Amino acid sequence: MCGIVAYVGHREACPLVLKGLKRLEYRGYDSAGIALMNGHGLRVYKKKGKVAALEQELAARESSGTIGMGHTRWATHGEPNDVNAHPHYSFHRKLAIIHNGIIENYAAIKQALLKKGHTFTSETDTEVLGQFIEDIWENNGGSLEDAVRLALQEVVGAYAIVIMNEADPTQLVAARKGSPLVIGVGEGEFFMASDATPIVEYTKDVIYLNDYEIAVIKNGLLTVVTLDNTTTTPYVQKVELELEAIEKGGFDHFMLKEIFEQPRSIADSMRGRVQADSGTMQLGGLRDYLDKLAASERIVIIGCGTSWHAGLVAEYIFEELARIPVEVEYASEFRYRNPIIKEGDIVIAISQSGETADTLAAIELAKSKGATIFGVCNVVGSSIARATDAGAYTHAGPEIGVASTKAFTAQVTVLTLMALAAAKRKGTISESLFRLLLAELESIPAKVEKVLQAADKIKEIAYIFTYARNFIYLGRGLNFPVALEGALKLKEISYIHAEGYPAAEMKHGPIALIDEDMPVVVIATKDSSYEKIVSNIQEVKARKGRVIAITTEGDTHLPSLVDFTIEIPKVHEVLVPLVSVIPLQLLAYDIAVMRGRNVDQPRNLAKSVTVE
Amino acid sequence: MCGIVAYVGHREACPLVLKGLKRLEYRGYDSAGIALMNGHGLRVYKKKGKVAALEQELAARESSGTIGMGHTRWATHGEPNDVNAHPHYSFHRKLAIIHNGIIENYAAIKQALLKKGHTFTSETDTEVLGQFIEDIWENNGGSLEDAVRLALQEVVGAYAIVIMNEADPTQLVAARKGSPLVIGVGEGEFFMASDATPIVEYTKDVIYLNDYEIAVIKNGLLTVVTLDNTTTTPYVQKVELELEAIEKGGFDHFMLKEIFEQPRSIADSMRGRVQADSGTMQLGGLRDYLDKLAASERIVIIGCGTSWHAGLVAEYIFEELARIPVEVEYASEFRYRNPIIKEGDIVIAISQSGETADTLAAIELAKSKGATIFGVCNVVGSSIARATDAGAYTHAGPEIGVASTKAFTAQVTVLTLMALAAAKRKGTISESLFRLLLAELESIPAKVEKVLQAADKIKEIAYIFTYARNFIYLGRGLNFPVALEGALKLKEISYIHAEGYPAAEMKHGPIALIDEDMPVVVIATKDSSYEKIVSNIQEVKARKGRVIAITTEGDTHLPSLVDFTIEIPKVHEVLVPLVSVIPLQLLAYDIAVMRGRNVDQPRNLAKSVTVE
Repeated sequence: MCGIVAYVGHREACPLVLKGLKRLEYRGYDSAGIALMNGHGLRVYKKKGKVAALEQELAARESSGTIGMGHTRWATHGEPNDVNAHPHYSFHRKLAIIHNGIIENYAAIKQALLKKGHTFTSETDTEVLGQFIEDIWENNGGSLEDAVRLALQEVVGAYAIVIMNEADPTQLVAARKGSPLVIGVGEGEFFMASDATPIVEYTKDVIYLNDYEIAVIKNGLLTVVTLDNTTTTPYVQKVELELEAIEKGGFDHFMLKEIFEQPRSIADSMRGRVQADSGTMQLGGLRDYLDKLAASERIVIIGCGTSWHAGLVAEYIFEELARIPVEVEYASEFRYRNPIIKEGDIVIAISQSGETADTLAAIELAKSKGATIFGVCNVVGSSIARATDAGAYTHAGPEIGVASTKAFTAQVTVLTLMALAAAKRKGTISESLFRLLLAELESIPAKVEKVLQAADKIKEIAYIFTYARNFIYLGRGLNFPVALEGALKLKEISYIHAEGYPAAEMKHGPIALIDEDMPVVVIATKDSSYEKIVSNIQEVKARKGRVIAITTEGDTHLPSLVDFTIEIPKVHEVLVPLVSVIPLQLLAYDIAVMRGRNVDQPRNLAKSVTVE
Repeated sequence: MCGIVAYVGHREACPLVLKGLKRLEYRGYDSAGIALMNGHGLRVYKKKGKVAALEQELAARESSGTIGMGHTRWATHGEPNDVNAHPHYSFHRKLAIIHNGIIENYAAIKQALLKKGHTFTSETDTEVLGQFIEDIWENNGGSLEDAVRLALQEVVGAYAIVIMNEADPTQLVAARKGSPLVIGVGEGEFFMASDATPIVEYTKDVIYLNDYEIAVIKNGLLTVVTLDNTTTTPYVQKVELELEAIEKGGFDHFMLKEIFEQPRSIADSMRGRVQADSGTMQLGGLRDYLDKLAASERIVIIGCGTSWHAGLVAEYIFEELARIPVEVEYASEFRYRNPIIKEGDIVIAISQSGETADTLAAIELAKSKGATIFGVCNVVGSSIARATDAGAYTHAGPEIGVASTKAFTAQVTVLTLMALAAAKRKGTISESLFRLLLAELESIPAKVEKVLQAADKIKEIAYIFTYARNFIYLGRGLNFPVALEGALKLKEISYIHAEGYPAAEMKHGPIALIDEDMPVVVIATKDSSYEKIVSNIQEVKARKGRVIAITTEGDTHLPSLVDFTIEIPKVHEVLVPLVSVIPLQLLAYDIAVMRGRNVDQPRNLAKSVTVE
């Protein structure tokens, strides 16, 4: 996820674009850049860090001009630095391009261009696309928009792009597939942006560009063509949402937006990595270390909070598929012990921000003992990503809500891919199970989508339990960490004391808490421990607890036994946490909202815990 | 702990002794036996199981006679079966003996008797003592009481014994050291028992025999001599306590009694195993497997509830001292996975009752995968003790309170000894640290005693928080499992929702729960993580949480920072859980009592969970 802003018209472009970029910083903020044009040609300024850093940089530079475009980045390819920031020049500097999304086949395109003698200054997929377009434009002799269209016909991936042409200070070419792009239509001026927030103070008339459409602004006129070269008439509509609501994509809170983004973010975390059709997969960041991972005798996973829960899920998956013993440690506990690390041991560190202080310190300790460290982070180029030997990014996009949701499912997805890769290399997984799991993985986004459609039903249940003082969450096997995660969500944002337990452990103590006032959320999907957890539910019901069960679609038994059920689609047992956690996120969110809590900024908590 | 009853007078002894034994079954109930005498000589009947089983057995037997003694057993040496049950005959069957306690040097005495041609039918220390007394009596030519006195002068250990003499149907000889013995004085009749409950319905006049005293009843007369042969005048007093209170040793609840028993029960769990003076230790049950333990590459500990917490403590100790990686698993989760067990892996199963169904099933699974299994149980001869390859009993005596207290400290003690033995064998511990820890272990009972003396202060704190709705418990390192255990105690008996967390993990979510209504118990003893946990306390105080800190004696800093402090003596860091858990047990107990809960039988819970 990145933020895009562009302008062409009669105003000074630079301050307008910078202001717009700040509105979009929720989409990413690891580096920013701007392209401007006047008599002095096409100029690009870029800077690592927030938009404010770019603004400071520009203060002393020539920045006049009435056309410009800017970008605030959330790194996907290449670490966040000045060079990798957008815009990118094309090879002969005739064009500049900004891009939000991922070009999956960029490596193949790059290879072809390298053969033609091209060189690249950055590690980004975006620079490759810019050079590719310029190359076609130069060699095919058509218009710039033709070149864009031909280039995009070759591209696999998701994108929203805007291109400036050094030869024409009235021209902007934009296109989208999968990533959003809004065009604002003013009096003799046009605005483009990833959402309407940078636009609404100038005009309420907007066009939401559709997938496979190319927009061309030239000499004050807008035309839209499709990738197959059909001219379409864009639909101009009025923006009526509040600024803040637009940033949140129409959702009341970032957390809710992020919950609903999960079909996309889970897909993003697999994008370019899983090919279910051919039964293959690869994790670029692991390539050189896969043998080591597969050969390891012991894996230690470290993390904090939600990341620690993702680690617990991974423990089950690694042990089951790759038959490697896994220990999951709280980073804060690990770092203050004298942990046992032997040669060949692998440490996997999980952190959304990649800046978690305890986890970073634990990595340094493990390194000093000779461990090989893998990182699973969301923020590209973060401290943890840089401190590890290898790893895989989760590509979930920036997470703004303090209570982590899409980062968790992305972590679990990536850790599952790591386990699959290790199992495949080690030969502990059959070809048929491997293929089955890849196919199942690809089906997860649609299944998550289906759960999200039940949001209203979950809201009804949340309403009933708005004023509960306590909650217990129970699960077995892979759903035990999900129970912990569900309880943590409720704690974090509603301030209700919720606790997760392995269901069978309850009778060794916590069952004393159960009475008619105690809501008990039980994840009781149809898998190998289904019969056992039904028994645990009966134990709770015998003490008059009120049971909310997460069940598998078509389960006709549990509804008669429990007070409320929330159905999820049938999922392969190994992957069930990716789907079973969704209703728990919604339940926590709804209860917190009904209690009037500040969901996106719960009391006492910080998004990224950079202190120990 | 066992129960003892004896009678001589004009009544039928058999029904009186059986009734008395039933009153004493809280002291142990794995087997029972009785000795009776009339014209048919000295007859002994014994039976595995509860007293009721013995009673049934006796229904068809000759059981008349006005002298008799009985015993209900809690096994310490030898599994519970008919043969190991008391009474035991002496070698020439002139005497029968019942015994409560442990003869620590029985092996040496047995060796000497074996050389003389003696044989033994049971594995008990008691049979050894009986034969030893008879041997002295036969060879020294004095009276039976002289022989008892001379024998006991040689004995190291704790005991309450009663002896019947085949040659004299009016004679009972009893002695005590360390284990209780009460003598009831009636009209021409005498009663003896471990406590007054079997006696009070016949007479209120009782004598509490003192340590090192021998009581002889002969021809209707009682004399008391000391071990050094001074005749003393026994002090006859009136019993005024209620029956139930006597069983509970004057405490309001079994749980409280068991909390206060810990200086003794911890000592019992080390008895005969630790010789701090000579810097040596041994664990009989481990002898043949110690090399295997020391050579293991990985230990998996399984348990449920409180036993699982003891396992978490052991994880730290094993890793720190013996440098063997340890994983601690919930038995219920372990058994339903396909756990990875490799050759050379050791599984340690922990269970107070030795009958926990989930743990037993987990053992069977681990066995089927070729693991070597060690057991740490309290009940000798229990299913788990029989299912394991090796192990060590905790010797804490029967635990009646459903919320486990003395079993936990005994488990931690024994697991510490196992870790020390492994570390010593492996050479990962220095001689000086080894000796230091043995000496520190010996000092633990006195330190626990000191904490118990602060019970009134803890009660005052409990009073203030009687109506708290939630509690958080925090600890780091070895005190993290103690925090979990403290929270579990409160949950179990007060039904307050309490949760334990590693202190530094709190900021990753649970800190959202903290406000001025939230009591937070922090174990903040002066050890390596002291500074860190002080920071965690400050985080809590900054959110207005109310902090009860468990501190080390002489800490002058924390009292100014927190709301309440409870001091414990300075303890070596590795052993701190044995002492830091005590105030948490008392706090939970006091709060539960003030809330009017049924402490010994909390709702929904069972003492020994023999279902999964």
